[in-house]
Amino acid sequence: HGPFSNAVNSWINRTTAQIKSAIARELQVAPETITLTDSVSSGCNIPIWGLTWREGDHILLSDCEHPGIIALVEEIRQRFGIKVSTCPLLETLNGGDPTAAIAQNLRPTTRLVVISHILWNTGQVLPLAEIVAACRAATTQYAPVRVLVDAAQSVGVLPLNLSEIGADFYAFTGHKWLCGPAGLGGLYVRPEVLEEIRPTFIGWRGISKDPQGNPTGWLPDGRRFEVATSDFALYGALQAAIALHNEWGTAGDRLHRIQTLSHSLWQRLSALPAIACLRAAPPEAGLVSFQVKDYSPTTHSSIVNQLEKQGFLLRTIAHPDCIRACVHYFTTEDDIDRLIVALSALLNE
Amino acid sequence: HGPFSNAVNSWINRTTAQIKSAIARELQVAPETITLTDSVSSGCNIPIWGLTWREGDHILLSDCEHPGIIALVEEIRQRFGIKVSTCPLLETLNGGDPTAAIAQNLRPTTRLVVISHILWNTGQVLPLAEIVAACRAATTQYAPVRVLVDAAQSVGVLPLNLSEIGADFYAFTGHKWLCGPAGLGGLYVRPEVLEEIRPTFIGWRGISKDPQGNPTGWLPDGRRFEVATSDFALYGALQAAIALHNEWGTAGDRLHRIQTLSHSLWQRLSALPAIACLRAAPPEAGLVSFQVKDYSPTTHSSIVNQLEKQGFLLRTIAHPDCIRACVHYFTTEDDIDRLIVALSALLNE
Repeated sequence: HGPFSNAVNSWINRTTAQIKSAIARELQVAPETITLTDSVSSGCNIPIWGLTWREGDHILLSDCEHPGIIALVEEIRQRFGIKVSTCPLLETLNGGDPTAAIAQNLRPTTRLVVISHILWNTGQVLPLAEIVAACRAATTQYAPVRVLVDAAQSVGVLPLNLSEIGADFYAFTGHKWLCGPAGLGGLYVRPEVLEEIRPTFIGWRGISKDPQGNPTGWLPDGRRFEVATSDFALYGALQAAIALHNEWGTAGDRLHRIQTLSHSLWQRLSALPAIACLRAAPPEAGLVSFQVKDYSPTTHSSIVNQLEKQGFLLRTIAHPDCIRACVHYFTTEDDIDRLIVALSALLNE
Repeated sequence: HGPFSNAVNSWINRTTAQIKSAIARELQVAPETITLTDSVSSGCNIPIWGLTWREGDHILLSDCEHPGIIALVEEIRQRFGIKVSTCPLLETLNGGDPTAAIAQNLRPTTRLVVISHILWNTGQVLPLAEIVAACRAATTQYAPVRVLVDAAQSVGVLPLNLSEIGADFYAFTGHKWLCGPAGLGGLYVRPEVLEEIRPTFIGWRGISKDPQGNPTGWLPDGRRFEVATSDFALYGALQAAIALHNEWGTAGDRLHRIQTLSHSLWQRLSALPAIACLRAAPPEAGLVSFQVKDYSPTTHSSIVNQLEKQGFLLRTIAHPDCIRACVHYFTTEDDIDRLIVALSALLNE
C-alpha cells in the first residue's frame, strides 16, 4: 500500500483507535484522554512544558524520581525561574506516611507535584488517590495543585482506575510491564485539565487545518500532543501484548500472582545471610530490591553481570545502592529457585 | 537477551553508532553532530524550542512551509511574544531569486530563518548554501541569523555536504526518500551552534550522571537532545536502506536518474492537453506537481483516489491546489507510461 495513501491512512487511523481503546480499558478512562508517545519521558515532558510557568512557581518532586525527570525539572527551573524542592519518601519505605510527607512539603506557590506511582528504586507503591486528594485539598495560590505521575513501573502491574484516582497527568510506557515493543508509550490527561496545558513539541498530527492547509488550532483530544509520523506498526504489537495479558487473567489476578511470586522471592532473599532486602515487609508489587551486606562499590554490579551470564536479568540501582529484581505474573517458582541457587553460589565464592 | 541488560545495551550502543555513521556519511558531517529523532517535526522542534527567545525577536518563514512547522512557529510566537513573517518563495518557482526574497525580508530583529531545502508543494530546490551565506552576511541585532532547514524532501534525493552548506540545523526523516521505516529521523546541528540551543524534551538518554545517579549536565554531542527509549530496531532497518541505495549508485548517480525520470514525467504530463505542470522548466528533483485545467474543488482528490485504486500513489496538495507525484531513482519508464495512460483515461472520462 506504500508509505502514504488513503489505504495506509485508514489503517493508521484504525490501528490508532484500537490501541487507544485497549490502553483506555486498562486505565479505565475514555480513549480521547490518551496521547500516544514514544516513552514515559516524552509523556512527562508534555504537561511539564505545557503549563504556563510564572517566576517563583514551585514544583515538588519526591526523592525517588528517575534522573531523566529530575533533569527535566531542573531545566524548567533554569528556564522559567521556578523553585524546586524534594520531599523525603525513601524514608517511608518501612513506615511513615508518604501522603503526609507530600502534604507537609506543599507551599503556597506549589503548582505541580511530580511523583511515581511505584517507586522505581525501592518498589514502594504510593497511595496515589490519597496523595491526589491531599494535593486537591491544599490551599495554594494556584489551587488545586496538579499531580503528574511517572507510571513507568505501575502500568501493567496495578489494576488501575484513573478516573477514580484523579491524577491530572499519568505518563506510561508499553515496553516495561506490558511487555510491548520499545518506542511506544502514552500519556493520560484528565479531561478537566486538558486546556491548562499547551502543546509544546508540535507537528501535523496534533493540529486542525482549513481547506487551504493552514493550521487553525489543536485537535480536540489527546491527539493534540502527538507530533508526526511514528512507527505505527508498534500499535498492533502493544495491542497484542495487552490482549495476551488479559487472556491470562484480570489485572487483579495478575497483581495477585505477581505478589505471590515477589513475596516468595523476598522471603528467599531475606533468608540468605549475606542479603538484606530494602523492604522489611513483603513487596506490594513486582520490584524486589536488595543489598549485599558489607558490599564494596563493585559488589552489586559484579553480581548483576555474573547473573546475566546465567540468563538472569537484574539491574543495579545507584540510589539507594542496591540490586533490583523484577517479578512478573509469568515468572515461575522455578525461576526464583534457580536465581536463589545462582545468587548463593556467587555470594559464597 | 531481554528488554534491558548489558548485552542489549551494548547492542543499542553499537547499532546507534552504526546508524549515526551511516547518516553522517550521507550528509558529509561528523556522527557526533547527529541527533536521532522520530520525525522531521521533532527535529525542527528541538532548535526552535532550544533557542532562548526574547520578546520582539523575529522568525522568517517561507510561504511554502509545512502546516506542522507553521503551527509550531505560531505557538512560539504566542508563548514568547516574538514576531513572525513570511517571505514569498512560491512566486519564484518559474523565475525570480529566492535568496534575494529571503534577504529582503530579514529584519534587524531576525534570529531564525525557517525554510525547506526542497519545497514540499512545488518541488523547487532552494539554493541553500547561497541562502545561508546571505543570512550570515545580514547585519542584525543577534547576528548571525540562524537557519533551520526542513529537509523532509531533500535527504535521500540530493547529494549533500552539510559541512559546506553551513546550515545551522537540518531536520530530516528516514521514511521518505531514504525508504527507511516510519518513526526514525534525525537532526544535524552545526557544531559551532550546539551550545546555542538548550535541550527541551529531556530524558535519561541525553544527560550525564554522577555515581549516585544524579544528573550532572548534558552529553557532549547530539545525544543531548535524545529523550529516552525508542524503537531501536528501526536503526538497523534504516542502515540497510541507506546501504541499498549506495549499492545502486552514488548520491549523484541517483539524483541524475531521478532527474531523468522526473523530466520524462513532466514532459509527458505537459503534453496532456488537460494538465498544467506547476513548473515551466523540468523538475530539479523528484517532485512533480501539476494541476488539471479548469478543476473543481473535488477534481484533484477524485483523480488521486482513482489512481490509488490502480496502484499509483500520488497525493493532493492544498496550497497551491495541485496533485503531486514523486519519482525516485527506482521508478521505471514503464511506471511513467502506465501513469500517463491511467491519467489520460481518467481525464477523458
